Amino acid sequence: MFEYHLKAKGYELDSYNHVNNAVYLNYMEQARWEIMRDQKLLDKLQSSGKKLVVTEVHVKYIREIRLFDEIVVLTKIKKEAPYLVFQHKIKNKTNGLFAAKANVKTILLDSDNMPEDIPDDLVDLTKKK
Amino acid sequence: MFEYHLKAKGYELDSYNHVNNAVYLNYMEQARWEIMRDQKLLDKLQSSGKKLVVTEVHVKYIREIRLFDEIVVLTKIKKEAPYLVFQHKIKNKTNGLFAAKANVKTILLDSDNMPEDIPDDLVDLTKKK
Amino acid sequence: MFEYHLKAKGYELDSYNHVNNAVYLNYMEQARWEIMRDQKLLDKLQSSGKKLVVTEVHVKYIREIRLFDEIVVLTKIKKEAPYLVFQHKIKNKTNGLFAAKANVKTILLDSDNMPEDIPDDLVDLTKKK
Amino acid sequence: MFEYHLKAKGYELDSYNHVNNAVYLNYMEQARWEIMRDQKLLDKLQSSGKKLVVTEVHVKYIREIRLFDEIVVLTKIKKEAPYLVFQHKIKNKTNGLFAAKANVKTILLDSDNMPEDIPDDLVDLTKKK
Repeated sequence: MFEYHLKAKGYELDSYNHVNNAVYLNYMEQARWEIMRDQKLLDKLQSSGKKLVVTEVHVKYIREIRLFDEIVVLTKIKKEAPYLVFQHKIKNKTNGLFAAKANVKTILLDSDNMPEDIPDDLVDLTKKK
Repeated sequence: MFEYHLKAKGYELDSYNHVNNAVYLNYMEQARWEIMRDQKLLDKLQSSGKKLVVTEVHVKYIREIRLFDEIVVLTKIKKEAPYLVFQHKIKNKTNGLFAAKANVKTILLDSDNMPEDIPDDLVDLTKKK
Repeated sequence: MFEYHLKAKGYELDSYNHVNNAVYLNYMEQARWEIMRDQKLLDKLQSSGKKLVVTEVHVKYIREIRLFDEIVVLTKIKKEAPYLVFQHKIKNKTNGLFAAKANVKTILLDSDNMPEDIPDDLVDLTKKK
Repeated sequence: MFEYHLKAKGYELDSYNHVNNAVYLNYMEQARWEIMRDQKLLDKLQSSGKKLVVTEVHVKYIREIRLFDEIVVLTKIKKEAPYLVFQHKIKNKTNGLFAAKANVKTILLDSDNMPEDIPDDLVDLTKKK
């Protein structure tokens, strides 16, 4: 399980005074960037001209997030060839409750935007407990 | 079928030089705002303190959107009590191809954030061909 | 004078229920992208690896912008070597009043991020009445 | 001097692969929210229906910010009646250099959007060394 910690910010609120639903996708995207960097995969991807691109997003919103709430994005990763699927849970540490659950399906594209098999070093992410 | 037309903007691009996946949710949110206003429902909702809140989003990304692409968000609405479901298709008029398809499930909350039945004037939206 | 027309969108509102101050910069950035494209300068810049980068922004906020307000960004351009300065006025067509005035100073960087003189085709922008 | 620490995020990058100029305003806005909360002023303002609104922003961009850069927003506050002026410096801890300097002029509006004098508890912010 990977963890990315953040705090809800004022400019992420919408006119309902809670974090806008699109911002949850920002939170999860950053969780994936952090994982890729921490696992030393980001430089490798970028120097090869490959990129991991989102092909499907399924989010269930459970509770609203308010200004200054302390959040953790919990992430597990599964291989469903040819996809790498990120299973995110957004937990609100301020109240101890889940704010959202989501599956984000990604595919690896080479420098010509053609799909590639998920390489072993990315598959290794799925073994992280 | 409702239509909302827009053009992809420079500040919506990410480092992959295409419109970021979270921005598709912005496009669809604005499509819903436009429908609510055009159908004279927005003032009614706001003056009653009620709000239509997103509880689930399922997006399939089909093709990337590039700077200046001309986009139309096509929307049909279905009632699946207690939800009002917006079925969006994002079509790229610049190349004639679909860029994404999505279902966005919403629920009506009263001024105490308690769920309400979808009222008749909102149900009428589902009859629009 | 260049004109870029837009409508204020729901996801651009903040918790004060008006367009957030940072979004005005998005509006002006897009006005610049539109000018560059309309004047056939964008492809030329991009193929040469050069980019026009913002080095200074000075915005006076005059009135708030609300959801669905119809906006026009009016732009004049001046050369103040080595800078190209965009003088923007944001006018709210819905009420006929100015919402903001701004100067945005840009500099041209080559593909090694070194400053360059403003070339003649960019200087020609300053002659537009 | 107030300090707000953050890390540059993937979705804040634009097509130039650096943090977009408008995002610097988000960083500074959040620095102000944090100050207001830490000084116990936020609840007081909100319960009185008053709000501190940005009337002028002047940013000098010095160096670009890249993905994962560790940033601190340093803030001093001055009273220039009727304004409260936030003097921000954005420092990049990753390279030790300043990324931007800015003055942000704010005014206090009451619940009818009429300007008010800056009250003593806000003036006290200016005494912080």
